[in-house]
Amino acid sequence: MILIGERINTGFKDIKQAVLNKDKTPIQEWAKKQTEAGADYLDVNLGAVSSKPEDMCWMIEAVQEVVDTPICIDSNKPQILAEAIKVCRKKPIVNSTTAAEEKLNQILPVVAEHHARVIGVVMDESGTPRTADKRVENAGKIFAKAMEYGIPAEDLFLDPIIMPLKFMQDQQKEILEAMRQFQFLSDPPPHIICGLSNVSNGALHKKLINRTFLAMAIGCGLDSAICDVMDVELINTARTAELIMNRQIYADSYIKT
Amino acid sequence: MILIGERINTGFKDIKQAVLNKDKTPIQEWAKKQTEAGADYLDVNLGAVSSKPEDMCWMIEAVQEVVDTPICIDSNKPQILAEAIKVCRKKPIVNSTTAAEEKLNQILPVVAEHHARVIGVVMDESGTPRTADKRVENAGKIFAKAMEYGIPAEDLFLDPIIMPLKFMQDQQKEILEAMRQFQFLSDPPPHIICGLSNVSNGALHKKLINRTFLAMAIGCGLDSAICDVMDVELINTARTAELIMNRQIYADSYIKT
Repeated sequence: MILIGERINTGFKDIKQAVLNKDKTPIQEWAKKQTEAGADYLDVNLGAVSSKPEDMCWMIEAVQEVVDTPICIDSNKPQILAEAIKVCRKKPIVNSTTAAEEKLNQILPVVAEHHARVIGVVMDESGTPRTADKRVENAGKIFAKAMEYGIPAEDLFLDPIIMPLKFMQDQQKEILEAMRQFQFLSDPPPHIICGLSNVSNGALHKKLINRTFLAMAIGCGLDSAICDVMDVELINTARTAELIMNRQIYADSYIKT
Repeated sequence: MILIGERINTGFKDIKQAVLNKDKTPIQEWAKKQTEAGADYLDVNLGAVSSKPEDMCWMIEAVQEVVDTPICIDSNKPQILAEAIKVCRKKPIVNSTTAAEEKLNQILPVVAEHHARVIGVVMDESGTPRTADKRVENAGKIFAKAMEYGIPAEDLFLDPIIMPLKFMQDQQKEILEAMRQFQFLSDPPPHIICGLSNVSNGALHKKLINRTFLAMAIGCGLDSAICDVMDVELINTARTAELIMNRQIYADSYIKT
């Protein structure tokens, strides 16, 4: 399981304030805490706080001063991704392209040039799909274009777009089925990822919903997640589900304490 | 979700002693506790303690003196099932037949005659299948024979045979895939059931393994389980997974406290 720490995101107040005040401390604290918790990557998201590439670069450099965990550069702005990729010391994940033609042609050449990894979110010009089939169709478009640019399946992460259970209950089965089908795009398959916490948006029992959905998604082929890596029960659920999928060897001591 | 309380089973020491001493108290305590916890059925299993049908009937009558929860008659002996079915006051589940021709022809006529429900365990004359395909083949045999005897899909529960994760790690994906395919045998599909606690046999973190497997299985179509209905976290995981599968309507207050 590839675990990407979600916490360095200006959607959280402390990180927003840190960026506004150019105070590295909260960013660096979360970089260290998430790394200690076992994060394989740290998502860094500037959000709507600024549209300047240098602010994203400042965040990434703050992280890299204290840990050597690779970065998942999270932005919907191609120019921010293009600048940020240059300051990453280790092979980053570019988060993200969509299946929209223009976006693919902006993002993928940069990813290929830097031998980076990339998340392909299965929305397109017409928006977010409502069915498993349309998600798979868009995944196929992203996959084909990535191959064209010489990006191997192992560097591609397909994201089916997680919806909040509370508000879009009928979407969950479509999302799980889409993940299941993503596995058949190639052999070996691309990675399958999600922004897990979205599933519990607005809900009361967030952690229970996150970990239950995660187990079900791993059963459908998910092998990576942007999530709360500090949530021990979540990580233990992921480890258990990976044993069930026979991806790790069982040992009585497999959980995190 | 159809929840069947697993606890009235001579595999547990207190129940074994109760049967040997003809002491109804432990049986009746577990009947009440599991019913209060929300069990839809109570599994009653005489095990190897006795091969006399009257001992099974005594257990069932002890249960029926204190609760009106229907019974899941758990025995591999056709003569015990045939006698026990007569003392059940509510429509029971007969647990179980296999896909072996002789067994099907012994058990199913009795089930049909009493308008009971039945669990079909997907083993046959050659033993327990190792692949999803063979499990589905045996499920198909059971399904066809049940139809022949006039037992409707809604009264048939298919059991893929759960194996311990610790000792048979490679079987788990086969079991999940078999469940996924059982759903396509008919529309509406038969029920899909398992003896959940088997998955954690011999393991250290039993409850974590039980609830993680349960979430994954519900994602593959499981809609009933013989399980520890006293395990609140397990029940809450089941409820969450059912929301994700859109089988229940979301409400913030959906969990058990």
